[in-house]
Amino acid sequence: MPPHFQIIPIGTIHKEEGAPVWVEIDPQYADGLLGLENFSHITVLYWLDRNDTAEQRRILRVHPRKDKANPLTGVFATHAPVRPNPIALTTCKLLAVQGCRLYIETIDALDRSPVVDIKAYIPPRQEAQEAVRVPAWVGRT
Amino acid sequence: MPPHFQIIPIGTIHKEEGAPVWVEIDPQYADGLLGLENFSHITVLYWLDRNDTAEQRRILRVHPRKDKANPLTGVFATHAPVRPNPIALTTCKLLAVQGCRLYIETIDALDRSPVVDIKAYIPPRQEAQEAVRVPAWVGRT
Repeated sequence: MPPHFQIIPIGTIHKEEGAPVWVEIDPQYADGLLGLENFSHITVLYWLDRNDTAEQRRILRVHPRKDKANPLTGVFATHAPVRPNPIALTTCKLLAVQGCRLYIETIDALDRSPVVDIKAYIPPRQEAQEAVRVPAWVGRT
Repeated sequence: MPPHFQIIPIGTIHKEEGAPVWVEIDPQYADGLLGLENFSHITVLYWLDRNDTAEQRRILRVHPRKDKANPLTGVFATHAPVRPNPIALTTCKLLAVQGCRLYIETIDALDRSPVVDIKAYIPPRQEAQEAVRVPAWVGRT
């Protein structure tokens, strides 16, 4: 096994105040978008590039949602933006595909975050959803 | 923006015929698991290492599920194991956490696949699920 793997950005998130939010896919990957418009939702995998420092990648425990009232928790038991590999994923409503632009409803990402993959969203079976259990802090606002 | 980002494996999938399936987290990341046992499901992000070749990373269109009856589709509109960044994600039922071993019900991954992140699974809102739309090929067996 090699010591690490290479992630190549395939696009960028555009998120500016008062403007539509979109993912711009680099033109050399345009062929990979065929048929995406048939899905109502997509999962966007993006790189938390502003947290990609050796120091932040060593953080293994956080108070979820930066709230000290939430118990100290391992980063793998959270969606915290600091983690050994600073990769984030969000499932978004896909509003329109226009060439290499994927217009989405919203995303909890910083403007100009590098996108590393797009996956069509296929929902889990209903029964699977009903059996989901989460700790109390998830329900806090 | 750098030309690429570095992914460091944090563990390995163990999946052998007739044995329980588990994710082995490397001991230096053990602190990141605190509280994971409070979740019923986890999302495992893993590297499709056996597809990590320059040639396979250039494939942008496939017949979903390797079935020629399914229309030629962009890889971003599928969960195909070939894509520019060969990263896979699967949400799994978490059966038990024993030290650095996460026992899971099942995963559609090859034995010894490198794991790159674990995220606690927080389900989407019910309304969001009801609005999901997918193309016909998703429903085929």
